[in-house]
Amino acid sequence: MLLLVVAALIGVVIIFQAFVRKPESQFKLANIPAGEFDPAVWGKYYPLQYESYRKNLEMSPSPTGFGGSEKVQKSVLEPEILINFKGMAFSKEYTEDRGHPYAIQDLKETKRVTPASPGACMTCKTANLIDIYKSKGWQYAKTPLPELYPLMKHPIVCANCHDPATMNLRVVNPAFVEAMQRRGIDVKKATREEMRSYVCGQCHVEYYFEPESQKVVFPWEKGVLPEQMYAYYQERPAGFDQDWLHPDSQAKMLKAQHPEFETWQNSVHGKSGVSCADCHMPYVRKHGRKYTSHWVTSPMRTTKESCMTCHTQSAEWLLQRVKTIQGNAWQLQKVAGQAVARAHDVIGKAGNVAGVKQAELAKARELLRKAQWFWDIVAAENSMGFHNPDQVLNTLGQSIDMAHQAAATANKAANGAF
Amino acid sequence: MLLLVVAALIGVVIIFQAFVRKPESQFKLANIPAGEFDPAVWGKYYPLQYESYRKNLEMSPSPTGFGGSEKVQKSVLEPEILINFKGMAFSKEYTEDRGHPYAIQDLKETKRVTPASPGACMTCKTANLIDIYKSKGWQYAKTPLPELYPLMKHPIVCANCHDPATMNLRVVNPAFVEAMQRRGIDVKKATREEMRSYVCGQCHVEYYFEPESQKVVFPWEKGVLPEQMYAYYQERPAGFDQDWLHPDSQAKMLKAQHPEFETWQNSVHGKSGVSCADCHMPYVRKHGRKYTSHWVTSPMRTTKESCMTCHTQSAEWLLQRVKTIQGNAWQLQKVAGQAVARAHDVIGKAGNVAGVKQAELAKARELLRKAQWFWDIVAAENSMGFHNPDQVLNTLGQSIDMAHQAAATANKAANGAF
Repeated sequence: MLLLVVAALIGVVIIFQAFVRKPESQFKLANIPAGEFDPAVWGKYYPLQYESYRKNLEMSPSPTGFGGSEKVQKSVLEPEILINFKGMAFSKEYTEDRGHPYAIQDLKETKRVTPASPGACMTCKTANLIDIYKSKGWQYAKTPLPELYPLMKHPIVCANCHDPATMNLRVVNPAFVEAMQRRGIDVKKATREEMRSYVCGQCHVEYYFEPESQKVVFPWEKGVLPEQMYAYYQERPAGFDQDWLHPDSQAKMLKAQHPEFETWQNSVHGKSGVSCADCHMPYVRKHGRKYTSHWVTSPMRTTKESCMTCHTQSAEWLLQRVKTIQGNAWQLQKVAGQAVARAHDVIGKAGNVAGVKQAELAKARELLRKAQWFWDIVAAENSMGFHNPDQVLNTLGQSIDMAHQAAATANKAANGAF
Repeated sequence: MLLLVVAALIGVVIIFQAFVRKPESQFKLANIPAGEFDPAVWGKYYPLQYESYRKNLEMSPSPTGFGGSEKVQKSVLEPEILINFKGMAFSKEYTEDRGHPYAIQDLKETKRVTPASPGACMTCKTANLIDIYKSKGWQYAKTPLPELYPLMKHPIVCANCHDPATMNLRVVNPAFVEAMQRRGIDVKKATREEMRSYVCGQCHVEYYFEPESQKVVFPWEKGVLPEQMYAYYQERPAGFDQDWLHPDSQAKMLKAQHPEFETWQNSVHGKSGVSCADCHMPYVRKHGRKYTSHWVTSPMRTTKESCMTCHTQSAEWLLQRVKTIQGNAWQLQKVAGQAVARAHDVIGKAGNVAGVKQAELAKARELLRKAQWFWDIVAAENSMGFHNPDQVLNTLGQSIDMAHQAAATANKAANGAF
């Protein structure tokens, strides 16, 4: 009888463990109100996730030697940046990105931002976008940025990607939802695995501000390849002709933003259904608990969890592969950037030559606009080619060709003066 | 008692099956004499392997659209070949390669070969190399090729890679053994898995003929990267200055050969220990028997056996990946080849300008020599970039840069006449 009672008790404990305790401690949904953006409040209910999110405050060089989360001026290693972005904000300051918690601080501190900057600039810097867009709609994009500062209480936090009521993944950037819609994709119908890339893709993309409205638009109608996005811009959407006029070459230039989402899409990882989070936010364990790391960083810091779930090689082997690929991309990126810089110089000088053939010079400027786009769409992307090695290296090769053609065409226009 | 007898009989049958019958039918070593090179004789003992070897006689386009085993002139799709190889044999004829059984026939038929061609040309065309080298040593390389024709009875056959007594893999090309020795590698100590690449690597490599002796030499002392092999040639080994002088540009040119072995070595497959045979000669099955396919062809014909033992994606998915990579390589290869062709033209014209700066022109020729090497080492390689995508695309990008620099430098030397 006693044995039966003991057995029954053990049974109850096992059932309790399996069905009652686990959900309480690990999966219980906290009662976080919709307007709560403070990650510390969320963190009380999701301490492991929050603890890992806090690691985004750390600043360190990248394990591969490229990228990293320290505020280093890119022009130190790539002085061609100062020539290629002459006359626009990115020649004033262009640093490696720090982690999500620094988004507002870095926005306010960068020399790229002025009192005249549009509110559109804060789109991807704060969870308060949710409130601001709710109350103002796209009007916020036109509002002077400093006017929005008091409303921006929290940087990129839990709420940017999670619904507090269900903890489901969500996207909050209207520009992403609209751009996907134009591609015929309803993000509301996305699978969870798709959402594990969409939450990143709502910001880690190429975009521009529409001239009148300052509305944020992603140029994806023709596709997400460098050539396709360039073709989109060539149609001068909503009268968007240029980001700036280069003071030396007088070419109408475009500035590429961080197109991680586009670059990854046609890569071996993208085509294999490997999401951004699979590599950058792997499942990790602590005290026997499995959870998603919210330290969004180089997968080379979590090679075992990020890569070795699929790849059977050692962490050191994988690091060397990444370094090899990035080394090849870096070398061509330098060559392309310098060829572009030289083209600005030659076209600029040719423009000052008396009797220069203007039609030829215009052709040179068009070539340069495209050459720089092909360089920049890679140089501005945060993976040093790894997100799509063959596409990236092809893009850089084409940039090199067009940059040289631009210089040669200008030289010809000036009767070979240079 | 009867039961015991039956059990004993069953036991004997099992033992017979396991130790006696299988070796007889599948693994028995045939008594093939050392000098027997006729694959039909070997085929009597190894019918499945021989049957698959006979498939090398088939001629068909490649499943990816690049390469293939039909004798198509490459200049049809790449007319720049006719400019870049002007003045040398590869401008007369440059076809896609047919299978190993055609090696002697294609050697005799190609317009690249003349009665004055050296015996060295047959090194990788016949198993009779074994006898010829045994009796003449490297002297055969100097012997006029037509004198050796009567000795060349069989093309590339079983004996090129197998020891008839043990069926072990072996290499028979002395140039390979010597080149590996110079790199500190004793091929006699190679593992079986290494041999599954070495047997291919004994011929699918970059090489040159030493000027005096016509000895076949692989330029690997500094490494097998395009830059390293170029650095080797820049030291003018054994007085080897050039393969030919280009009639237009007057540049001292090098002709790259088929560096599959070198290209693969630093690739993701090479570094993962995946051998040539793993992909190109996969294990297949017939009538329940597992054997090595000797149809040396595109792995895209045997995707299940070649790729899907490691890769979990579908055959169609894998084909699309290969096509994407090859498409990226093909595009840059065309751009590079055309930039090189243009450089020959510009340097050639600049050379005819009165008062052209000769020192500058010499620099332009050096740049062109290197630019063409970087294009050719890819264009001559049989994989359209797939054997090492990031290295190949980087190489092409550099070629494009140098080719444009060469043209610009020549143009400057001629005071911007072009």
